[in-house]
Amino acid sequence: MSRQMVRPGGRSARVQASVHAAVRELVAENGREALTVPQVAQRAGVTPSTIYRRWGDLQELLSDVAVERLRPETAPGDHGSLLSDLTSWAEQFLDEMSSPTGRAYIRDALLGDPDGGNAGQCSAYAAEQIDAVLARAAGRGERTPGTEAVIDHVVAPLMYRILFRPDGLDSAYARRLVTAVLAPAAH
Amino acid sequence: MSRQMVRPGGRSARVQASVHAAVRELVAENGREALTVPQVAQRAGVTPSTIYRRWGDLQELLSDVAVERLRPETAPGDHGSLLSDLTSWAEQFLDEMSSPTGRAYIRDALLGDPDGGNAGQCSAYAAEQIDAVLARAAGRGERTPGTEAVIDHVVAPLMYRILFRPDGLDSAYARRLVTAVLAPAAH
Repeated sequence: MSRQMVRPGGRSARVQASVHAAVRELVAENGREALTVPQVAQRAGVTPSTIYRRWGDLQELLSDVAVERLRPETAPGDHGSLLSDLTSWAEQFLDEMSSPTGRAYIRDALLGDPDGGNAGQCSAYAAEQIDAVLARAAGRGERTPGTEAVIDHVVAPLMYRILFRPDGLDSAYARRLVTAVLAPAAH
Repeated sequence: MSRQMVRPGGRSARVQASVHAAVRELVAENGREALTVPQVAQRAGVTPSTIYRRWGDLQELLSDVAVERLRPETAPGDHGSLLSDLTSWAEQFLDEMSSPTGRAYIRDALLGDPDGGNAGQCSAYAAEQIDAVLARAAGRGERTPGTEAVIDHVVAPLMYRILFRPDGLDSAYARRLVTAVLAPAAH
């Protein structure tokens, strides 16, 4: 991520887009194991040194691509209540993150991430979605827990079990976590 | 881990010990980045093919070594109450896992772990320690939460924040998580 801070605009953005697209295409075609920087460079129409200068190595590039793929594409749905909104968000989060593709992206995001910026961005995406759900609930006059409490007691258990303890992970488990984190606010 | 399942005994155990020791020495001497399988083989007095046959690649070897290093060396201390025992265990877990060395081992354990067995072993270590704390508390006649509840609401938030959201992680945070998970059992 530190590299991103110093990226210039126009051409830089085009290079990033074409390199990211090349990675996604080549992984889809040949799998992640077969991927090499020269392959990516050729497909993207840049020199390998452009990629090494910008991403350091293949792992950092894969990490950048993963974070891009993990960015939520839509705002959390409005189902009329905090319980429904947070439950459906948590079920979708679990579905996406526990899929083989989701797990691979999480591992990539964590792996090629010396300064932790990419993992932090993944967590920031989740926090933004939760903020939106809680703000909408507050707007309805519902009592809400804090965003960090939802991170600690819904997002963290889901992500911990996806990474370390996947047995018995299902949407009923996600629903139990949401019900529990909302219980105190309900009193 | 699948490889470990089929490992024979005696010589196999000696090879593992010497290879693990070689990895730890070389990482200490030259850092993880400089590590290569031929280096490890030479230091351990085995052939590179022995390492490739057994561990597949350097990342799987590093993952195996990491899990070995993450195994708790002592039983959780007895401080006279569930609150004290679990608090001091959680503070120590946070200290160890959030240290640069701990973070590196967690990343290694997750990364070279295609079948998730090594990450599962890390979680099993934490669960065993928590089981011991809860069993001792039950023996004192204290009300206790379940092990999985402590995993979800103490271990998971600590590990999630170590990996994804490290700002503001401190022992006061660990203590708050422990107090909160024990609160329902106290009623």
